Amino acid sequence: MNPLTIIKVGGNVIDDESALTLFLIEFAKVSGKKILVHGGGKVATQLAEALHIAQEMVDGRRITDAETLKVVTMVYAGLINKNIVAKLQANYCNAVGLCGADGNVILAHKRISKTDFGYVGDVDEVNVEAMEKLLCMADALIVAPITHDGNGQLLNTNADTIAQEIAKACSSTYATTLIYSFEKPGVLLDANDDTTVIPTLHRSKFDELRAANKIFAGMIPKLENALSAVDAGVKKVIIGKASDLQHLIGGQSGTAITSSES
Amino acid sequence: MNPLTIIKVGGNVIDDESALTLFLIEFAKVSGKKILVHGGGKVATQLAEALHIAQEMVDGRRITDAETLKVVTMVYAGLINKNIVAKLQANYCNAVGLCGADGNVILAHKRISKTDFGYVGDVDEVNVEAMEKLLCMADALIVAPITHDGNGQLLNTNADTIAQEIAKACSSTYATTLIYSFEKPGVLLDANDDTTVIPTLHRSKFDELRAANKIFAGMIPKLENALSAVDAGVKKVIIGKASDLQHLIGGQSGTAITSSES
Repeated sequence: MNPLTIIKVGGNVIDDESALTLFLIEFAKVSGKKILVHGGGKVATQLAEALHIAQEMVDGRRITDAETLKVVTMVYAGLINKNIVAKLQANYCNAVGLCGADGNVILAHKRISKTDFGYVGDVDEVNVEAMEKLLCMADALIVAPITHDGNGQLLNTNADTIAQEIAKACSSTYATTLIYSFEKPGVLLDANDDTTVIPTLHRSKFDELRAANKIFAGMIPKLENALSAVDAGVKKVIIGKASDLQHLIGGQSGTAITSSES
Repeated sequence: MNPLTIIKVGGNVIDDESALTLFLIEFAKVSGKKILVHGGGKVATQLAEALHIAQEMVDGRRITDAETLKVVTMVYAGLINKNIVAKLQANYCNAVGLCGADGNVILAHKRISKTDFGYVGDVDEVNVEAMEKLLCMADALIVAPITHDGNGQLLNTNADTIAQEIAKACSSTYATTLIYSFEKPGVLLDANDDTTVIPTLHRSKFDELRAANKIFAGMIPKLENALSAVDAGVKKVIIGKASDLQHLIGGQSGTAITSSES
Protein backbone atom coordinates (compact mmCIF):
# COMPACT_ATOMS: atom_id res chain seq x y z
CA MET A 1 0.00 0.00 0.00
CA ASN A 2 1.17 3.53 -0.76
CA PRO A 3 1.77 5.79 2.21
CA LEU A 4 -0.64 8.60 3.04
CA THR A 5 -0.03 11.19 5.75
CA ILE A 6 -3.02 13.00 7.21
CA ILE A 7 -2.19 16.01 9.34
CA LYS A 8 -4.53 18.05 11.51
CA VAL A 9 -3.16 21.50 12.23
CA GLY A 10 -4.65 23.41 15.13
CA GLY A 11 -6.03 26.92 15.43
CA ASN A 12 -2.97 28.29 17.23
CA VAL A 13 -0.88 27.75 14.07
CA ILE A 14 -3.62 29.12 11.78
CA ASP A 15 -3.82 32.29 13.92
CA ASP A 16 -0.08 32.99 13.74
CA GLU A 17 0.88 33.96 10.17
CA SER A 18 4.61 33.36 10.54
CA ALA A 19 4.07 30.02 12.34
CA LEU A 20 1.67 29.01 9.54
CA THR A 21 4.15 29.98 6.83
CA LEU A 22 6.90 27.90 8.49
CA PHE A 23 4.51 24.98 9.03
CA LEU A 24 3.49 25.00 5.34
CA ILE A 25 7.14 24.99 4.22
CA GLU A 26 7.61 21.81 6.30
CA PHE A 27 4.29 20.34 5.15
CA ALA A 28 5.31 20.83 1.51
CA LYS A 29 8.42 18.70 2.18
CA VAL A 30 6.49 15.70 3.58
CA SER A 31 7.09 12.87 1.12
CA GLY A 32 4.24 10.98 -0.54
CA LYS A 33 0.60 11.98 -0.78
CA LYS A 34 -0.79 14.01 2.10
CA ILE A 35 -3.97 15.57 3.43
CA LEU A 36 -4.06 18.63 5.66
CA VAL A 37 -7.16 19.23 7.78
CA HIS A 38 -7.27 22.70 9.26
CA GLY A 39 -9.34 24.27 11.97
CA GLY A 40 -10.41 27.88 11.98
CA GLY A 41 -8.61 29.52 14.85
CA LYS A 42 -9.90 32.81 16.16
CA VAL A 43 -10.64 34.42 12.79
CA ALA A 44 -14.23 33.12 12.65
CA THR A 45 -14.94 34.37 16.17
CA GLN A 46 -13.43 37.76 15.34
CA LEU A 47 -15.49 38.04 12.13
CA ALA A 48 -18.68 37.04 13.97
CA GLU A 49 -17.96 39.69 16.61
CA ALA A 50 -17.35 42.36 13.96
CA LEU A 51 -20.71 41.43 12.39
CA HIS A 52 -22.43 41.42 15.82
CA ILE A 53 -23.39 37.75 15.51
CA ALA A 54 -23.50 36.44 19.09
CA GLN A 55 -21.37 33.31 19.55
CA GLU A 56 -22.16 30.55 22.02
CA MET A 57 -19.90 27.60 22.86
CA VAL A 58 -21.13 24.39 24.53
CA ASP A 59 -18.51 21.79 25.54
CA GLY A 60 -15.98 23.54 23.32
CA ARG A 61 -18.27 23.29 20.27
CA ARG A 62 -19.62 26.32 18.48
CA ILE A 63 -23.42 26.61 18.34
CA THR A 64 -23.88 27.23 14.63
CA ASP A 65 -26.98 29.22 13.67
CA ALA A 66 -27.58 30.20 10.02
CA GLU A 67 -25.52 33.40 10.27
CA THR A 68 -22.65 31.66 12.06
CA LEU A 69 -22.65 28.95 9.38
CA LYS A 70 -22.12 31.70 6.77
CA VAL A 71 -19.21 33.05 8.84
CA VAL A 72 -17.45 29.69 9.25
CA THR A 73 -18.02 28.77 5.58
CA MET A 74 -16.44 32.07 4.55
CA VAL A 75 -13.51 31.86 6.95
CA TYR A 76 -12.72 28.12 6.87
CA ALA A 77 -13.53 27.16 3.24
CA GLY A 78 -12.68 30.58 1.78
CA LEU A 79 -10.10 32.71 3.54
CA ILE A 80 -8.02 30.10 5.39
CA ASN A 81 -8.31 27.26 2.88
CA LYS A 82 -7.40 29.32 -0.20
CA ASN A 83 -4.53 31.13 1.50
CA ILE A 84 -3.05 27.78 2.55
CA VAL A 85 -3.41 26.46 -1.01
CA ALA A 86 -1.75 29.55 -2.52
CA LYS A 87 1.13 29.34 -0.04
CA LEU A 88 1.66 25.64 -0.79
CA GLN A 89 1.68 26.32 -4.54
CA ALA A 90 4.47 28.84 -3.86
CA ASN A 91 6.34 25.96 -2.13
CA TYR A 92 5.97 23.72 -5.19
CA CYS A 93 3.34 21.58 -3.49
CA ASN A 94 0.37 21.19 -5.83
CA ALA A 95 -2.55 21.46 -3.43
CA VAL A 96 -6.31 21.33 -3.97
CA GLY A 97 -8.53 22.88 -1.30
CA LEU A 98 -11.85 21.29 -0.48
CA CYS A 99 -14.74 21.18 1.86
CA GLY A 100 -16.79 18.02 2.36
CA ALA A 101 -19.31 19.01 -0.34
CA ASP A 102 -16.64 19.17 -3.08
CA GLY A 103 -16.65 15.91 -4.99
CA ASN A 104 -19.03 14.70 -2.25
CA VAL A 105 -15.94 13.78 -0.20
CA ILE A 106 -17.53 13.95 3.28
CA LEU A 107 -21.20 13.29 3.95
CA ALA A 108 -22.59 14.21 7.36
CA HIS A 109 -25.90 14.73 9.12
CA LYS A 110 -27.09 17.58 11.31
CA ARG A 111 -26.27 16.62 14.89
CA ILE A 112 -29.13 15.07 16.82
CA SER A 113 -28.68 16.06 20.46
CA LYS A 114 -30.49 17.45 23.49
CA THR A 115 -28.53 20.67 23.00
CA ASP A 116 -29.47 22.28 19.67
CA PHE A 117 -26.05 22.79 18.07
CA GLY A 118 -27.65 24.23 14.92
CA TYR A 119 -25.84 23.52 11.65
CA VAL A 120 -23.22 21.21 13.16
CA GLY A 121 -22.46 17.99 11.30
CA ASP A 122 -21.53 14.51 12.46
CA VAL A 123 -19.66 12.56 9.77
CA ASP A 124 -21.45 9.61 8.11
CA GLU A 125 -19.11 8.72 5.29
CA VAL A 126 -15.78 9.63 3.73
CA ASN A 127 -15.68 9.04 -0.04
CA VAL A 128 -12.28 7.35 -0.38
CA GLU A 129 -12.65 6.85 -4.14
CA ALA A 130 -13.07 10.61 -4.66
CA MET A 131 -10.11 11.33 -2.36
CA GLU A 132 -7.98 8.84 -4.32
CA LYS A 133 -8.86 10.47 -7.65
CA LEU A 134 -8.06 13.91 -6.29
CA LEU A 135 -4.76 12.63 -4.90
CA CYS A 136 -3.87 11.33 -8.38
CA MET A 137 -3.76 14.89 -9.69
CA ALA A 138 -2.52 16.71 -6.59
CA ASP A 139 0.30 16.33 -4.06
CA ALA A 140 -1.94 17.43 -1.22
CA LEU A 141 -5.59 17.94 -0.34
CA ILE A 142 -6.42 20.76 2.06
CA VAL A 143 -9.68 20.07 3.85
CA ALA A 144 -11.75 22.78 5.54
CA PRO A 145 -13.97 21.57 8.40
CA ILE A 146 -17.25 22.10 6.55
CA THR A 147 -19.26 19.08 5.36
CA HIS A 148 -22.66 18.66 3.69
CA ASP A 149 -25.74 16.49 4.13
CA GLY A 150 -26.34 15.61 0.47
CA ASN A 151 -29.52 17.70 0.48
CA GLY A 152 -27.87 21.05 -0.13
CA GLN A 153 -27.07 21.90 3.49
CA LEU A 154 -23.51 22.75 4.55
CA LEU A 155 -22.57 21.76 8.11
CA ASN A 156 -19.88 23.00 10.51
CA THR A 157 -17.86 19.94 11.55
CA ASN A 158 -15.08 19.32 14.07
CA ALA A 159 -11.69 19.23 12.33
CA ASP A 160 -10.20 16.57 14.68
CA THR A 161 -13.10 14.28 13.82
CA ILE A 162 -12.74 14.92 10.10
CA ALA A 163 -9.02 14.07 10.23
CA GLN A 164 -9.78 10.87 12.12
CA GLU A 165 -12.62 9.81 9.82
CA ILE A 166 -10.51 10.46 6.71
CA ALA A 167 -7.64 8.44 8.21
CA LYS A 168 -9.89 5.52 9.12
CA ALA A 169 -11.59 5.45 5.72
CA CYS A 170 -8.32 5.74 3.78
CA SER A 171 -6.58 3.00 5.80
CA SER A 172 -8.08 0.29 3.57
CA THR A 173 -6.34 1.79 0.53
CA TYR A 174 -3.25 3.51 1.95
CA ALA A 175 -0.71 2.86 4.71
CA THR A 176 -2.08 5.76 6.72
CA THR A 177 -0.35 7.88 9.35
CA LEU A 178 -2.48 10.42 11.23
CA ILE A 179 -0.74 13.36 12.88
CA TYR A 180 -2.43 15.68 15.37
CA SER A 181 -0.19 18.71 15.54
CA PHE A 182 -0.82 21.19 18.32
CA GLU A 183 1.04 23.42 20.80
CA LYS A 184 2.34 20.65 23.12
CA PRO A 185 5.32 18.38 22.29
CA GLY A 186 3.23 15.23 22.75
CA VAL A 187 1.19 13.37 25.34
CA LEU A 188 2.58 14.41 28.72
CA LEU A 189 2.76 12.50 32.00
CA ASP A 190 2.83 15.89 33.71
CA ALA A 191 0.76 18.55 31.92
CA ASN A 192 3.07 21.26 33.27
CA ASP A 193 6.32 19.64 32.24
CA ASP A 194 7.07 19.49 28.51
CA THR A 195 9.95 17.06 29.12
CA THR A 196 7.57 14.28 30.24
CA VAL A 197 6.43 13.25 26.74
CA ILE A 198 5.37 9.60 26.48
CA PRO A 199 7.21 8.47 23.30
CA THR A 200 5.00 5.49 22.43
CA LEU A 201 1.61 4.34 23.54
CA HIS A 202 -0.66 1.42 22.77
CA ARG A 203 -3.94 0.22 24.26
CA SER A 204 -2.60 -1.78 27.24
CA LYS A 205 -0.07 0.89 28.19
CA PHE A 206 -2.80 3.54 27.96
CA ASP A 207 -5.11 1.49 30.21
CA GLU A 208 -2.30 1.02 32.71
CA LEU A 209 -1.34 4.73 32.81
CA ARG A 210 -4.96 5.77 32.98
CA ALA A 211 -5.72 3.41 35.86
CA ALA A 212 -2.78 4.93 37.73
CA ASN A 213 -4.15 8.47 36.98
CA LYS A 214 -0.93 9.27 35.17
CA ILE A 215 -2.53 10.84 32.10
CA PHE A 216 -3.68 14.45 32.08
CA ALA A 217 -7.51 14.36 31.90
CA GLY A 218 -7.64 16.78 28.94
CA MET A 219 -5.65 14.33 26.82
CA ILE A 220 -7.93 11.34 27.40
CA PRO A 221 -10.55 12.04 24.67
CA LYS A 222 -7.75 12.73 22.13
CA LEU A 223 -6.06 9.45 23.08
CA GLU A 224 -9.33 7.49 22.96
CA ASN A 225 -9.79 8.85 19.42
CA ALA A 226 -6.22 7.96 18.48
CA LEU A 227 -6.61 4.40 19.81
CA SER A 228 -9.94 4.01 18.01
CA ALA A 229 -8.20 5.13 14.79
CA VAL A 230 -5.44 2.50 15.12
CA ASP A 231 -8.07 -0.11 16.00
CA ALA A 232 -9.79 0.83 12.71
CA GLY A 233 -6.62 0.19 10.67
CA VAL A 234 -4.68 3.46 10.81
CA LYS A 235 -1.02 2.42 10.98
CA LYS A 236 0.10 5.07 13.41
CA VAL A 237 -1.22 8.18 15.13
CA ILE A 238 1.32 10.79 16.15
CA ILE A 239 0.58 13.64 18.57
CA GLY A 240 3.04 16.50 18.87
CA LYS A 241 4.19 20.01 18.11
CA ALA A 242 3.26 21.57 14.76
CA SER A 243 6.65 23.33 14.58
CA ASP A 244 8.37 19.96 14.79
CA LEU A 245 6.62 18.23 11.87
CA GLN A 246 9.63 16.48 10.31
CA HIS A 247 10.70 15.04 13.69
CA LEU A 248 7.16 13.87 14.42
CA ILE A 249 7.12 11.99 11.11
CA GLY A 250 10.66 10.72 11.68
CA GLY A 251 9.74 9.40 15.12
CA GLN A 252 12.29 11.60 16.96
CA SER A 253 9.61 13.55 18.82
CA GLY A 254 5.96 13.45 19.83
CA THR A 255 3.90 10.52 21.02
CA ALA A 256 3.31 7.64 18.60
CA ILE A 257 0.16 5.60 19.18
CA THR A 258 0.13 2.17 17.56
CA SER A 259 -2.10 -0.89 17.80
CA SER A 260 0.46 -2.98 19.73
CA GLU A 261 3.92 -2.80 21.25
CA SER A 262 5.57 -3.89 18.02
CA MET B 1 -13.54 15.94 -29.26
CA ASN B 2 -15.80 15.63 -26.23
CA PRO B 3 -18.16 18.53 -25.60
CA LEU B 4 -17.52 20.96 -22.74
CA THR B 5 -19.95 23.69 -21.71
CA ILE B 6 -18.59 26.68 -19.81
CA ILE B 7 -21.20 28.92 -18.25
CA LYS B 8 -20.68 32.30 -16.62
CA VAL B 9 -23.54 33.19 -14.31
CA GLY B 10 -23.93 36.81 -13.31
CA GLY B 11 -24.31 38.51 -9.95
CA ASN B 12 -28.06 39.13 -10.36
CA VAL B 13 -28.68 35.36 -10.22
CA ILE B 14 -26.24 34.85 -7.32
CA ASP B 15 -28.04 37.59 -5.35
CA ASP B 16 -31.49 36.01 -5.76
CA GLU B 17 -31.66 32.74 -3.82
CA SER B 18 -34.71 31.32 -5.60
CA ALA B 19 -33.36 32.29 -9.05
CA LEU B 20 -30.05 30.62 -8.14
CA THR B 21 -31.78 27.44 -6.97
CA LEU B 22 -33.74 27.22 -10.25
CA PHE B 23 -30.63 27.99 -12.29
CA LEU B 24 -28.67 25.22 -10.54
CA ILE B 25 -31.46 22.69 -11.20
CA GLU B 26 -31.14 23.54 -14.91
CA PHE B 27 -27.33 23.58 -14.77
CA ALA B 28 -27.33 20.08 -13.23
CA LYS B 29 -29.29 18.85 -16.28
CA VAL B 30 -26.79 20.15 -18.87
CA SER B 31 -25.37 17.06 -20.57
CA GLY B 32 -21.65 16.35 -20.72
CA LYS B 33 -18.87 17.92 -18.69
CA LYS B 34 -19.39 21.52 -17.61
CA ILE B 35 -17.73 24.40 -15.82
CA LEU B 36 -19.61 27.13 -13.97
CA VAL B 37 -17.84 30.44 -13.36
CA HIS B 38 -19.65 32.63 -10.87
CA GLY B 39 -19.34 36.24 -9.94
CA GLY B 40 -19.95 37.57 -6.49
CA GLY B 41 -23.03 39.72 -6.70
CA LYS B 42 -23.72 42.22 -3.96
CA VAL B 43 -22.76 39.99 -1.02
CA ALA B 44 -19.09 41.07 -1.04
CA THR B 45 -20.05 44.75 -1.10
CA GLN B 46 -22.53 44.21 1.75
CA LEU B 47 -19.95 42.36 3.84
CA ALA B 48 -17.33 45.06 3.20
CA GLU B 49 -19.85 47.70 4.28
CA ALA B 50 -20.71 45.79 7.46
CA LEU B 51 -16.97 45.62 8.24
CA HIS B 52 -16.51 49.33 7.41
CA ILE B 53 -14.05 48.58 4.61
CA ALA B 54 -14.47 51.42 2.12
CA GLN B 55 -15.11 50.17 -1.42
CA GLU B 56 -14.00 51.97 -4.56
CA MET B 57 -14.93 51.05 -8.12
CA VAL B 58 -13.00 52.26 -11.20
CA ASP B 59 -14.45 51.41 -14.65
CA GLY B 60 -16.71 48.82 -13.02
CA ARG B 61 -13.74 47.06 -11.37
CA ARG B 62 -13.33 46.80 -7.61
CA ILE B 63 -10.16 48.34 -6.18
CA THR B 64 -8.93 45.45 -4.06
CA ASP B 65 -6.84 46.40 -1.04
CA ALA B 66 -5.66 43.70 1.40
CA GLU B 67 -8.84 43.84 3.49
CA THR B 68 -11.09 43.76 0.42
CA LEU B 69 -9.15 40.75 -0.90
CA LYS B 70 -10.00 38.91 2.34
CA VAL B 71 -13.67 39.83 1.86
CA VAL B 72 -13.89 38.63 -1.77
CA THR B 73 -11.93 35.45 -0.96
CA MET B 74 -14.35 34.66 1.85
CA VAL B 75 -17.48 35.48 -0.14
CA TYR B 76 -16.56 34.15 -3.60
CA ALA B 77 -14.39 31.11 -2.80
CA GLY B 78 -16.12 30.31 0.50
CA LEU B 79 -19.76 31.27 0.91
CA ILE B 80 -20.98 31.37 -2.70
CA ASN B 81 -18.79 28.60 -4.12
CA LYS B 82 -19.52 26.03 -1.40
CA ASN B 83 -23.25 26.76 -1.33
CA ILE B 84 -23.41 26.23 -5.10
CA VAL B 85 -21.49 22.95 -4.76
CA ALA B 86 -23.77 21.67 -1.96
CA LYS B 87 -26.89 22.58 -3.98
CA LEU B 88 -25.55 20.79 -7.07
CA GLN B 89 -24.75 17.67 -5.02
CA ALA B 90 -28.40 17.70 -3.93
CA ASN B 91 -29.29 17.73 -7.65
CA TYR B 92 -27.13 14.66 -8.32
CA CYS B 93 -24.47 16.74 -10.06
CA ASN B 94 -21.07 15.86 -8.61
CA ALA B 95 -19.39 19.26 -8.45
CA VAL B 96 -15.97 20.34 -7.24
CA GLY B 97 -15.51 23.98 -6.25
CA LEU B 98 -12.24 25.73 -6.98
CA CYS B 99 -10.40 28.97 -7.12
CA GLY B 100 -7.47 29.49 -9.45
CA ALA B 101 -4.94 28.43 -6.79
CA ASP B 102 -6.46 24.96 -6.38
CA GLY B 103 -4.52 22.50 -8.52
CA ASN B 104 -2.78 25.59 -9.91
CA VAL B 105 -5.64 25.87 -12.43
CA ILE B 106 -5.38 29.61 -13.15
CA LEU B 107 -2.17 31.60 -12.89
CA ALA B 108 -2.38 35.37 -13.00
CA HIS B 109 -0.28 38.44 -12.25
CA LYS B 110 -1.14 41.53 -10.24
CA ARG B 111 -2.47 44.09 -12.71
CA ILE B 112 0.06 46.61 -13.97
CA SER B 113 -1.81 49.84 -14.64
CA LYS B 114 -1.75 53.60 -14.07
CA THR B 115 -4.65 53.13 -11.65
CA ASP B 116 -3.55 50.99 -8.69
CA PHE B 117 -6.23 48.30 -8.63
CA GLY B 118 -4.52 46.55 -5.70
CA TYR B 119 -4.80 42.77 -5.59
CA VAL B 120 -6.52 42.42 -8.96
CA GLY B 121 -5.25 39.69 -11.27
CA ASP B 122 -4.91 39.45 -15.04
CA VAL B 123 -4.90 35.85 -16.25
CA ASP B 124 -1.64 34.44 -17.65
CA GLU B 125 -2.43 30.77 -18.03
CA VAL B 126 -5.19 28.21 -17.63
CA ASN B 127 -3.91 24.75 -16.71
CA VAL B 128 -6.01 22.59 -19.05
CA GLU B 129 -4.37 19.34 -17.93
CA ALA B 130 -5.43 19.99 -14.31
CA MET B 131 -8.96 20.91 -15.45
CA GLU B 132 -9.16 17.70 -17.50
CA LYS B 133 -8.09 15.56 -14.53
CA LEU B 134 -10.63 17.24 -12.28
CA LEU B 135 -13.34 16.75 -14.93
CA CYS B 136 -12.53 13.02 -14.98
CA MET B 137 -13.72 12.70 -11.40
CA ALA B 138 -16.48 15.33 -11.37
CA ASP B 139 -19.48 16.24 -13.52
CA ALA B 140 -18.87 19.94 -13.00
CA LEU B 141 -16.22 22.37 -11.81
CA ILE B 142 -17.42 25.50 -10.02
CA VAL B 143 -14.87 28.29 -10.36
CA ALA B 144 -14.74 31.30 -8.03
CA PRO B 145 -13.17 34.45 -9.54
CA ILE B 146 -10.04 34.34 -7.38
CA THR B 147 -6.69 33.42 -8.97
CA HIS B 148 -3.10 33.29 -7.68
CA ASP B 149 0.31 34.46 -8.83
CA GLY B 150 2.29 31.30 -7.99
CA ASN B 151 4.13 33.17 -5.24
CA GLY B 152 1.49 32.75 -2.57
CA GLN B 153 -0.64 35.77 -3.46
CA LEU B 154 -4.37 35.39 -4.18
CA LEU B 155 -5.81 37.86 -6.71
CA ASN B 156 -9.35 39.12 -7.36
CA THR B 157 -10.09 38.43 -11.02
CA ASN B 158 -12.95 39.29 -13.37
CA ALA B 159 -15.32 36.33 -13.78
CA ASP B 160 -16.16 37.11 -17.45
CA THR B 161 -12.45 37.02 -18.26
CA ILE B 162 -11.93 33.78 -16.35
CA ALA B 163 -14.79 32.12 -18.27
CA GLN B 164 -13.35 33.30 -21.57
CA GLU B 165 -9.78 32.23 -20.76
CA ILE B 166 -10.94 28.78 -19.61
CA ALA B 167 -13.00 28.39 -22.80
CA LYS B 168 -10.10 29.43 -25.03
CA ALA B 169 -7.60 27.15 -23.29
CA CYS B 170 -9.96 24.15 -23.26
CA SER B 171 -10.89 24.51 -26.94
CA SER B 172 -7.80 22.54 -28.01
CA THR B 173 -9.02 19.50 -26.02
CA TYR B 174 -12.81 19.86 -26.00
CA ALA B 175 -15.54 21.04 -28.39
CA THR B 176 -16.19 24.08 -26.23
CA THR B 177 -19.34 26.16 -25.90
CA LEU B 178 -19.15 29.32 -23.79
CA ILE B 179 -22.37 30.76 -22.37
CA TYR B 180 -22.65 34.19 -20.82
CA SER B 181 -25.89 34.13 -18.89
CA PHE B 182 -27.24 37.43 -17.63
CA GLU B 183 -30.52 39.35 -17.20
CA LYS B 184 -31.16 40.15 -20.91
CA PRO B 185 -32.48 37.61 -23.46
CA GLY B 186 -29.49 38.11 -25.76
CA VAL B 187 -27.72 40.79 -27.80
CA LEU B 188 -30.38 43.40 -28.62
CA LEU B 189 -30.69 45.70 -31.61
CA ASP B 190 -32.70 48.02 -29.37
CA ALA B 191 -31.51 47.97 -25.73
CA ASN B 192 -35.04 48.84 -24.58
CA ASP B 193 -36.82 46.16 -26.54
CA ASP B 194 -36.29 42.58 -25.44
CA THR B 195 -37.92 41.28 -28.65
CA THR B 196 -35.03 42.58 -30.79
CA VAL B 197 -32.58 39.75 -29.99
CA ILE B 198 -30.04 39.08 -32.76
CA PRO B 199 -30.21 35.26 -33.04
CA THR B 200 -26.80 34.71 -34.65
CA LEU B 201 -23.73 36.82 -35.09
CA HIS B 202 -20.32 36.39 -36.67
CA ARG B 203 -17.46 38.78 -37.33
CA SER B 204 -18.64 40.32 -40.63
CA LYS B 205 -22.24 40.75 -39.43
CA PHE B 206 -20.95 42.36 -36.23
CA ASP B 207 -18.77 44.79 -38.22
CA GLU B 208 -21.72 45.65 -40.44
CA LEU B 209 -24.15 46.26 -37.53
CA ARG B 210 -21.53 48.19 -35.61
CA ALA B 211 -20.74 50.45 -38.56
CA ALA B 212 -24.45 51.20 -38.83
CA ASN B 213 -24.56 52.02 -35.07
CA LYS B 214 -27.11 49.27 -34.60
CA ILE B 215 -25.49 47.65 -31.56
CA PHE B 216 -26.03 49.02 -28.08
CA ALA B 217 -22.66 50.46 -26.94
CA GLY B 218 -22.68 48.54 -23.64
CA MET B 219 -22.73 45.22 -25.53
CA ILE B 220 -19.68 45.97 -27.70
CA PRO B 221 -16.93 44.86 -25.24
CA LYS B 222 -18.87 41.64 -24.45
CA LEU B 223 -19.19 40.94 -28.20
CA GLU B 224 -15.55 41.73 -28.89
CA ASN B 225 -14.66 39.19 -26.20
CA ALA B 226 -17.05 36.63 -27.65
CA LEU B 227 -15.61 37.08 -31.17
CA SER B 228 -12.07 36.82 -29.83
CA ALA B 229 -13.07 33.55 -28.10
CA VAL B 230 -14.42 32.03 -31.33
CA ASP B 231 -11.33 33.29 -33.17
CA ALA B 232 -9.28 31.36 -30.57
CA GLY B 233 -11.11 28.10 -31.26
CA VAL B 234 -14.20 28.19 -29.04
CA LYS B 235 -16.95 26.54 -31.10
CA LYS B 236 -19.75 28.82 -30.08
CA VAL B 237 -20.43 31.64 -27.63
CA ILE B 238 -24.02 32.10 -26.49
CA ILE B 239 -25.29 35.21 -24.73
CA GLY B 240 -28.71 35.15 -23.07
CA LYS B 241 -30.97 34.85 -20.06
CA ALA B 242 -29.82 32.69 -17.12
CA SER B 243 -33.42 31.53 -16.53
CA ASP B 244 -33.52 30.16 -20.07
CA LEU B 245 -30.44 27.94 -19.91
CA GLN B 246 -31.80 24.86 -21.73
CA HIS B 247 -33.12 27.01 -24.62
CA LEU B 248 -29.80 28.86 -24.88
CA ILE B 249 -27.99 25.54 -25.23
CA GLY B 250 -30.66 24.21 -27.60
CA GLY B 251 -30.35 27.28 -29.83
CA GLN B 252 -33.99 28.35 -29.35
CA SER B 253 -33.09 31.58 -27.59
CA GLY B 254 -30.21 33.98 -26.98
CA THR B 255 -27.56 35.18 -29.39
CA ALA B 256 -25.11 32.62 -30.78
CA ILE B 257 -21.73 33.95 -31.86
CA THR B 258 -19.78 31.72 -34.22
CA SER B 259 -16.67 32.11 -36.34
CA SER B 260 -18.54 32.21 -39.65
CA GLU B 261 -22.04 32.16 -41.14
CA SER B 262 -22.05 28.38 -41.33
